Amino acid sequence: MESGYFKDKEFIITNMRPIRNLFNYLWNDSSLCQCDHFGNGYFFRNVGTQRRNIDNGERNVYIKDKKTGLIYSANRNYDNLPFDKYECHVGLGYQEIISEYNGMRVIFSLLVAKDDPVLLFNVKVENISNEKKEFDLYFENCPTPDTTWHAAYSYAEYDKQINGIIYHHDAFNPPNEYAKIFVSCDKKFDGFETSKNRFIGTYNDFSNPESLIKGKLSSLGTTFDNFIAAFSFSLSLNPQEHFEVTFSTATTINIDECYELSAKYLRKNAFNLEKQKQIELNDSYIDIFHLDSSDEYLNTQVNIWLKRQLSLGKTWGRIYGKGFRDVMQDITAFISFDCELAKNKILHALKYQYEDGNPIRMFEPNFKYPYNDGGIWIPEAILAYINESGDLNILDIDVPYLKGDSYENAIPSDAYFTEEYVSGQRKGNVFEHIQAAMDYLIGCRGEHNLVLWRGGDWNDSINNAGNRGIGESVWLSIATVKALNDFLDILNLIDKKDLVQKYIAARDELKAAINKYGRINNYYIYGINDDHEIIGGEERMFLNPQSWAVFADLSSKDELTKTMDKVEEKLKCDYGYVLCSPSFTKGKDNIGRVSYFQPGLVENGGVYNHGVAFKIIADCLLKRGDIAYKTLKLISCDNPKLANSGVEPYAVTNMYIGPENKYFAGFAPMCWVTGTAGWLYRAVTEYICGIKATINGLKIDPCLPLEWDEIKVSRIFRNNKYEFVIKRGKDKGIYVDGKLINGNVIDIPSPNKLIKCEVII
Amino acid sequence: MESGYFKDKEFIITNMRPIRNLFNYLWNDSSLCQCDHFGNGYFFRNVGTQRRNIDNGERNVYIKDKKTGLIYSANRNYDNLPFDKYECHVGLGYQEIISEYNGMRVIFSLLVAKDDPVLLFNVKVENISNEKKEFDLYFENCPTPDTTWHAAYSYAEYDKQINGIIYHHDAFNPPNEYAKIFVSCDKKFDGFETSKNRFIGTYNDFSNPESLIKGKLSSLGTTFDNFIAAFSFSLSLNPQEHFEVTFSTATTINIDECYELSAKYLRKNAFNLEKQKQIELNDSYIDIFHLDSSDEYLNTQVNIWLKRQLSLGKTWGRIYGKGFRDVMQDITAFISFDCELAKNKILHALKYQYEDGNPIRMFEPNFKYPYNDGGIWIPEAILAYINESGDLNILDIDVPYLKGDSYENAIPSDAYFTEEYVSGQRKGNVFEHIQAAMDYLIGCRGEHNLVLWRGGDWNDSINNAGNRGIGESVWLSIATVKALNDFLDILNLIDKKDLVQKYIAARDELKAAINKYGRINNYYIYGINDDHEIIGGEERMFLNPQSWAVFADLSSKDELTKTMDKVEEKLKCDYGYVLCSPSFTKGKDNIGRVSYFQPGLVENGGVYNHGVAFKIIADCLLKRGDIAYKTLKLISCDNPKLANSGVEPYAVTNMYIGPENKYFAGFAPMCWVTGTAGWLYRAVTEYICGIKATINGLKIDPCLPLEWDEIKVSRIFRNNKYEFVIKRGKDKGIYVDGKLINGNVIDIPSPNKLIKCEVII
Repeated sequence: MESGYFKDKEFIITNMRPIRNLFNYLWNDSSLCQCDHFGNGYFFRNVGTQRRNIDNGERNVYIKDKKTGLIYSANRNYDNLPFDKYECHVGLGYQEIISEYNGMRVIFSLLVAKDDPVLLFNVKVENISNEKKEFDLYFENCPTPDTTWHAAYSYAEYDKQINGIIYHHDAFNPPNEYAKIFVSCDKKFDGFETSKNRFIGTYNDFSNPESLIKGKLSSLGTTFDNFIAAFSFSLSLNPQEHFEVTFSTATTINIDECYELSAKYLRKNAFNLEKQKQIELNDSYIDIFHLDSSDEYLNTQVNIWLKRQLSLGKTWGRIYGKGFRDVMQDITAFISFDCELAKNKILHALKYQYEDGNPIRMFEPNFKYPYNDGGIWIPEAILAYINESGDLNILDIDVPYLKGDSYENAIPSDAYFTEEYVSGQRKGNVFEHIQAAMDYLIGCRGEHNLVLWRGGDWNDSINNAGNRGIGESVWLSIATVKALNDFLDILNLIDKKDLVQKYIAARDELKAAINKYGRINNYYIYGINDDHEIIGGEERMFLNPQSWAVFADLSSKDELTKTMDKVEEKLKCDYGYVLCSPSFTKGKDNIGRVSYFQPGLVENGGVYNHGVAFKIIADCLLKRGDIAYKTLKLISCDNPKLANSGVEPYAVTNMYIGPENKYFAGFAPMCWVTGTAGWLYRAVTEYICGIKATINGLKIDPCLPLEWDEIKVSRIFRNNKYEFVIKRGKDKGIYVDGKLINGNVIDIPSPNKLIKCEVII
Repeated sequence: MESGYFKDKEFIITNMRPIRNLFNYLWNDSSLCQCDHFGNGYFFRNVGTQRRNIDNGERNVYIKDKKTGLIYSANRNYDNLPFDKYECHVGLGYQEIISEYNGMRVIFSLLVAKDDPVLLFNVKVENISNEKKEFDLYFENCPTPDTTWHAAYSYAEYDKQINGIIYHHDAFNPPNEYAKIFVSCDKKFDGFETSKNRFIGTYNDFSNPESLIKGKLSSLGTTFDNFIAAFSFSLSLNPQEHFEVTFSTATTINIDECYELSAKYLRKNAFNLEKQKQIELNDSYIDIFHLDSSDEYLNTQVNIWLKRQLSLGKTWGRIYGKGFRDVMQDITAFISFDCELAKNKILHALKYQYEDGNPIRMFEPNFKYPYNDGGIWIPEAILAYINESGDLNILDIDVPYLKGDSYENAIPSDAYFTEEYVSGQRKGNVFEHIQAAMDYLIGCRGEHNLVLWRGGDWNDSINNAGNRGIGESVWLSIATVKALNDFLDILNLIDKKDLVQKYIAARDELKAAINKYGRINNYYIYGINDDHEIIGGEERMFLNPQSWAVFADLSSKDELTKTMDKVEEKLKCDYGYVLCSPSFTKGKDNIGRVSYFQPGLVENGGVYNHGVAFKIIADCLLKRGDIAYKTLKLISCDNPKLANSGVEPYAVTNMYIGPENKYFAGFAPMCWVTGTAGWLYRAVTEYICGIKATINGLKIDPCLPLEWDEIKVSRIFRNNKYEFVIKRGKDKGIYVDGKLINGNVIDIPSPNKLIKCEVII
């Protein structure tokens, strides 16, 4: 890891100029802040079905030495000064940038409060030299009050009561009510600035702000401007002395709310108390599943960071929006951490399912392209919830459908839709929501009896193979079989025998169609488009239909093993498996955008890790633990072939640019927002370690790689703690508190027990 | 003028860091480049009803001295080095930035080709020292190939045939066909760069590009990236030697077009030939009307720069879109420069009139808010065309209406509409278009018999006084009277007696309603809103209803003089007249956004110069030439009270922030895009100088300020040149070639004559 190292529950970045900026995310249910290794990154709040931007993420802590006149940004170091120390502590719910230069230690910390839509900044300056230091301290952040494009509505003014600045955008016909932003401070300041132009100067920038050179902030309000919240403190510190100040920022509907929120978070020690809350929240997840294997990096991923990452997805989807499929998958992986929270997230997402059973593509804000796969993610999430919690009552809870009976005949075309559309007239209980999703998919079939492709499926870049209502997706058909199996599991749990027969028949009919029309040369095609052309046939193999054929148990183990052998042969590269090979090199309108993407990019021959995670599970299902683990390590950023990928070691990326790309093979432009985290977490915990919740107890079915002789795992399940040792040996079997059990499901004792299990494989 | 001085037909900026960036515009009918005093600013092309961005305007010419290693940007001078010389020559159709530093003169010039959508850059470097100079020259510009938000479509590659780089965005379902951008060069280069990130470095910026510090460009293509077009030349110049290179850039549909356009503009001396074309085009306008008064600044404005500015508006409206009202007004002022071109612009704009007679608010790209004033600008423009050209045949030309019969029931909601909507089924000749506009306004009346306000009128920030279909605009009613008078002039020219009677009756009925319900305390209110509240009554006076009451001849001269006296009393400030006073300080939903704007901003108490120009003409119509001229000089940027306005001395601004604003009173954030230029031009030429085209000849009716004893004016009209001396004296009258004429219209002789006129006032 050239960028830094893991220590306790932090990653410590020591290289101030890595290949690309390294990001962390700070969030709660209402607000999110992107935060790079300088502490920079936007902050916004979710308000109803909309977003309210609060700042643009440009933040600096400047020191101006009164003796020498030297000015520098302690968190940005624009001039690349020879700092004695730079560390960015990437924390679970906080970020801390530490610099030491010229005898001064500056610690700039950020976090989002646990229970309110507030971002807190803490700045601590220590004199670590042997002499007295006289200096000015400046902090700046850039609020974005405008919610419309009329800058003439906006103004900023000092407010005594909050000891800070309030930014107003009192607009005619605004998109939402959040007209105010405040930035407040818990210490007396000597000057402030509201105008970015006055702060940096017309011809300067943040690397050399004019007002710092002049040495005085205007302490004026402004209007019709680019805004800043800058504060100055004239300080004098003896050796070992320090100064600490906290700022808070949020958007509110009115000024009273500014006063209230500001006061709450500028109480003494508020920042540290909030940091403690973040640590406790995340600690509670760490104990849920703990892996102790010989692979230290994997242990850290599974025990700490994958949990953090999939937890981001379960609340914020892909951040630019809450993709229905994305949120559902991440919730599925999240359930063991907090069943109640997961349940609420599932119920919320189901409000975005149309009355015809198909969910919207993305919500908050909405995106309405007629993707057809939304429904397949529903039964698995709810089954996982039932298995983890044992609570079947979720099936009886009523949830409204999205207004309108389908995509075509539904909500208005505005970029944002209002709350009224989210609470339609018709409600159905959760069971009916699942059934509606299944019935939609079963009823939406084409001439080969396969599920219609419509606007696309998981591979949302194949977005024009089925828009004419003819094309059929083989992958989506396979995924429907898998979803029907999950639904059948639910039906069996609630003993609905008549429905079981009906859906077995539907599943088997679909299975037969897939194996008849969807399979050539031992592998599965992607689909048949509107022009009756085969996509993913002889000319180009796709990864996901193969892995999902294993998920859906489409054929015999031997046949499926041949299929997955083809994957090894055709799709493997030095750092993973490409989503399709070869890449498209010529755009085809009856396929869609994937064919126009440049080779190796995204779905067009990229190493798309979400798909690789599916593949690892398929390997495990075929009991090929060694291939599964090797696959996992190929995409792991400790793979030496990925030394220049740019990836944050504490997060997984959705994609490495594929080997067919001429310029950026192996590079990963972004991280964090991907279904990969959830599926990798499940791949390791449920399939490699093989510990999976069922309604009756934990099911144990490990699939370890050859190089692991023994692992230790602990798991909290239904308020009991299970400690496993899984090792190779004679007398194979599962020993619970020393006793060999029948089968591979461990019964659930009364709560608060410690259960010791030895699993000999 | 602290920023520079006028010389010949240029303004020469000498201050490299004025209060704000100073802009010029370079354009032809298809393409437009904004260009500041560094040569920076976006470039785009109009394609159908859409825009295609070509670059983002970040441009630098760097010199790296091989001996000292010094790197600087000759046009930007980021580090504020002590240049020996800096000049930006703001030209009519070109921009030239000259710097001298370290013994090197660098001239960076830009222009848009006259007949093709091509932007040309010329870089000339001269050794003005006494020793040999060894250095690297770099030029960079930032193309923006993306037309969709999928960066994976984009790539850039060196192309030998154009000697440059082609940027591709071969997209699925793109918004337009313009998939290519080229940047080509007429000299061999040593290296190139396509990736902005590789050029400046991840943690550097344009002030210290990493690749220049390293000294080598990668000469690689790129994809999925931020793009740049950078070229390097390793040079050695003896004293007095120079090196010159030209680059061209444009967007095209395919590569063959790249080859064709590139070749055309990289021919030897192409840049200078194009510059000559620009000069000739603008020279042809200069002779049309020439003022020689004692006010040198005004002479320069009228003879050169106002023409340039209103000429921008007649093609590009307000740039963010072609406002129907804006384009119509600027065309009206433009007609004398090129009747044929003006005619085509009028015919084009009329395609954006709905079948119900009301035009769309803005076209290319479209904006569909139901403003109600579009029609009032039509008769004046066409009358002005007829008067200037003598050509009545325009009235018979067929033009299609915009598809759909009205705003409510018309084009789709997409941000862009396609060509098909612009060519509706129903056509009407130009006369019918005018009549439809008049009938629409006459037919659209409320309970006081005034014209309905609907979404708004000229004051488009009063945008919610009439949306419920009740509110009536007094200003719009007045403007309708004025438009009906223009229409009556046209009807009289074509001798349609029956229609004359009909429209006189309609006009008089409307006039009566205005004077009955629209007038209090000697002045006119702005209107009556949906809630039957008077807007612009006792509590707040508005400027425009007063000036337009004079335009529309609503009352006796005495009464109207009292009205305009109220304007002097209530709306005057040190640097003009505010649009309303006092400013709104509390938002009112039944008025609209103007009431939410902060005081002094834009329509809420700003010095809105478009309105001030109306007022100058009203003063002249009341024969108050002295007040007219004083008003003109109040908003003129040579008013010492406007020393810190920031305004380009070669352009007029739409607004100075009003005196009620706490922070920025007197500042003008922008320039160029305003109806002010056209109306000021007409105010000076047609009303103060009093030389106005009529179908039968030039009508002479000067209204000079007291301080002018004599002016000389020349005017080209119907291919004759008229030379006027207008002066105070005895024996008042108009003497043509020495002979006193009857009345004040000078007959039109056979063409190509020089007519000398003396006007004694």
